[in-house]
Amino acid sequence: MTSPYQQLSNHFQQLHHLHHLSAICGWDQATMMPHGGNDARSAALAELAVLTHQKLTAAQVGDWLDQAEHAGSPTLTDAQQANLREIHRRYQQARVLPEKLVQAQSLAGSRCEHAWREQRKNNDWSGFATNLKEVVNLSREEAAIRVAAHADNGSVLGNYDSLLDRYEPGMTTTRLDTLFGDLKTWLPGMIDRVIDQQSSQTVCPPQGPFPIEKQKALGLEIMTLLGFDFNHGRLDISVHPFCGGVPEDVRITTRYDEQDFTQSLMGIIHETGHARYEQGLPATWLSQPAGEARSMGIHESQSLFFEMQLGRHPAFLQRISPVIQSHLPGETGPAFSSANLARLYTRVQRGFIRVDADELTYPAHIILRYELERALIEGEIEVGDIPELWDQKMQRYLGVSTRGNYRDGCMQDIHWTDGSFGYFPSYTLGAMYAAQFCAALQRDLGDLAPRLARGELDDVFSWLSNNIWSQASLLETDALVKQATGEALNPGWFRTHLEKRYLDTSV
Amino acid sequence: MTSPYQQLSNHFQQLHHLHHLSAICGWDQATMMPHGGNDARSAALAELAVLTHQKLTAAQVGDWLDQAEHAGSPTLTDAQQANLREIHRRYQQARVLPEKLVQAQSLAGSRCEHAWREQRKNNDWSGFATNLKEVVNLSREEAAIRVAAHADNGSVLGNYDSLLDRYEPGMTTTRLDTLFGDLKTWLPGMIDRVIDQQSSQTVCPPQGPFPIEKQKALGLEIMTLLGFDFNHGRLDISVHPFCGGVPEDVRITTRYDEQDFTQSLMGIIHETGHARYEQGLPATWLSQPAGEARSMGIHESQSLFFEMQLGRHPAFLQRISPVIQSHLPGETGPAFSSANLARLYTRVQRGFIRVDADELTYPAHIILRYELERALIEGEIEVGDIPELWDQKMQRYLGVSTRGNYRDGCMQDIHWTDGSFGYFPSYTLGAMYAAQFCAALQRDLGDLAPRLARGELDDVFSWLSNNIWSQASLLETDALVKQATGEALNPGWFRTHLEKRYLDTSV
Repeated sequence: MTSPYQQLSNHFQQLHHLHHLSAICGWDQATMMPHGGNDARSAALAELAVLTHQKLTAAQVGDWLDQAEHAGSPTLTDAQQANLREIHRRYQQARVLPEKLVQAQSLAGSRCEHAWREQRKNNDWSGFATNLKEVVNLSREEAAIRVAAHADNGSVLGNYDSLLDRYEPGMTTTRLDTLFGDLKTWLPGMIDRVIDQQSSQTVCPPQGPFPIEKQKALGLEIMTLLGFDFNHGRLDISVHPFCGGVPEDVRITTRYDEQDFTQSLMGIIHETGHARYEQGLPATWLSQPAGEARSMGIHESQSLFFEMQLGRHPAFLQRISPVIQSHLPGETGPAFSSANLARLYTRVQRGFIRVDADELTYPAHIILRYELERALIEGEIEVGDIPELWDQKMQRYLGVSTRGNYRDGCMQDIHWTDGSFGYFPSYTLGAMYAAQFCAALQRDLGDLAPRLARGELDDVFSWLSNNIWSQASLLETDALVKQATGEALNPGWFRTHLEKRYLDTSV
Repeated sequence: MTSPYQQLSNHFQQLHHLHHLSAICGWDQATMMPHGGNDARSAALAELAVLTHQKLTAAQVGDWLDQAEHAGSPTLTDAQQANLREIHRRYQQARVLPEKLVQAQSLAGSRCEHAWREQRKNNDWSGFATNLKEVVNLSREEAAIRVAAHADNGSVLGNYDSLLDRYEPGMTTTRLDTLFGDLKTWLPGMIDRVIDQQSSQTVCPPQGPFPIEKQKALGLEIMTLLGFDFNHGRLDISVHPFCGGVPEDVRITTRYDEQDFTQSLMGIIHETGHARYEQGLPATWLSQPAGEARSMGIHESQSLFFEMQLGRHPAFLQRISPVIQSHLPGETGPAFSSANLARLYTRVQRGFIRVDADELTYPAHIILRYELERALIEGEIEVGDIPELWDQKMQRYLGVSTRGNYRDGCMQDIHWTDGSFGYFPSYTLGAMYAAQFCAALQRDLGDLAPRLARGELDDVFSWLSNNIWSQASLLETDALVKQATGEALNPGWFRTHLEKRYLDTSV
């Protein structure tokens, strides 16, 4: 007889297969699909979302879980216990949502996201707001349902907490308020100091045009240096860069600016971090919840480890400076020198665009979004209030105004279009985790700089693989971080990293 | 209360959505996917095949069909009646197959097809034969089950008939033997005469290299001339060219040879014919079986209408000769002249490769495959017999030997890799239908030549749209052909067309 645990395992393998189809068709929708195919694609993906939801919440799953959990631990390995825990979490998260709501969210999200691609270009806030209102209403509905379900289980969560929990299990608004509250006390001052300090620096921006094909070849070579497995993934173009696909076939994207190769290059390094996490998940657990990435914050810690701890490190830029020169036409002089690249990639500027922001101002963009989306979900503000509040907060945190410029203001991100409220904090949590991981890695392996300068990254990847990638969701987040670094999330490492990189003029 | 017919309609709309996911992921597998992603993709597509099969054969479907059919005709429009007929046919075709067989076929087909992509390059017959045997065994199993089911319904079909019926409803081995038997009486003689006659012609092959990007730009311009809707489709590269995707988003592919642009150009014209049929299916019926293409033979009639009746017509080549010259570098002299292009594109040669074959020798390739696959499914020969028989028939029909050259012999086609036995006859049926449609079109509109020379194709497309594309599966094949041309399939039109093009030296 098949055990209840085995039944669950088989069932979630089927769900893994359905997710594969959704991930590839979603990637295609953002990279390959002609505009006119969108209605049919949205309908097909919505159908699959309903089917997946039905399967995930089937009554059998609850029965099997009861039986497997009552059978007790002696019959299951630790990893199987962890898998059972993750299955339980997914089941509980899904079963509280009515099928009609899931379908409505998928349709509204696809519609809003697809229209946004054109609306953003046209600075069409009122068109976008119409779609976004529907998405927000459905997300509020979801939050209310989740809060009630948590209350039934005896835990008290706010509306926004209940959405945050989808991306960052264990994280709460209270904890975020502490983390981000601390950040707000010292970040604006540090930004001022660094900008002041850098004002006397000379930075030489490389002169384009840099043909897209050459930028792509450069990106592919850097991905190779960073260990991307091209037998299980590829690089393409999309409006908003992302890492999609499945662990067996990871699809990362970028967008190219012919006048500026530096953004797409660092974007590719960032997505390669996401990709290596996916490609490094344990092969034997791939079809199971315990084999999935731990959380969005931990995912972002890997992309930011690649981008911030490796990619923008002066020693790494020294290593890739000749690679850049070999791919791109134009001057071989000061612009492509490693010293100039290091200044470029640590240049702090107050700007509109989150994805173009430097390491230091980026958290300010996140805090802005966190405050707005939390208020939106809690019903404290409405969609119509967003542009005004966005502008106020941009002025307060970054000293720039986005009045009337929706394209570079509240319409710049893809996240809200499909209702991913609660996702934004992951970026700054990821930056904090990445700094903490990098400190622990250097404690274990010694200073990164000489390795980076030589491009000898195998030990670095082994450390990440052993401590993060191969661990997947076998541990909960705090336990994972503690096992890797000796302590739970400690934002002090992030501050130390920033101070060392941006204020220690002796480096 | 929802009527049984409406229940069926809703149910098949869901199946339409699932098919969408399968079609896009299948396209991706052939065009975009890295090699290492194949196992996961095959498993995901197999899961979807099982799910689709379960849904298609659900007991409810039989109940709804009984109720809708007993309700009688007064409550349904003619189109709804036709839809009911097509739903019934799909249900009956699917329900006889056990789920385990469907899953085994999907897995074996994916495995065989994917490995074939490398094995063909390596001329690895024994590796291929191992996979193919499994595919053949599963197809024989399918045929036996289908024959028994037909017998239960009182109709006597052979094993091969039962597979043929999947692609060409209403067609039988008996009918094919008559059509192909007639062809065999005059085709070899005509090939001899034409080759003899052309031996005194001078043909000037264009000298490459023709960069792929330039060939692609040429292809896109010709697709535009032929009315391809790029808002609902795109052009990419695959090992074996095909038309995939969904009517709302048609994905055609080609392969480029840098030394010879003529093959990919005509290949693109061919696939554009398939694409316009799909893009021209009636929008209001797209999600229903009655809104699908009529049959593989009718599908091929549209690609061959585009390729043979339009694309290789001297007047069309006259129209596109300057377009070719504007895209491709090199001589502007005799090679790109319309007269030379017309000689190139009607050049008859005895060759190995079906997809590279000219219009006149192509049916010989099809008859060879028809005879082999029929014998294979009837159990008269085994997979191990194929290379020897292939060589014998190639020598007999086309005077060339493929001994030891599996790559250009029995391993050249994709069709058998996933068990598409019964598909090959569609090509020559399509050529016959295309000739008959073109004769009827000229009866209605007058001689094509002046329109083609001017590139004024709107009336031609309107005729095809009115008579074929918009009709989808609302009529059965014979009725469709009769409505469009005044008679059922009459292979005389094909012979007339070939005699006029290849033997009428006055043209």
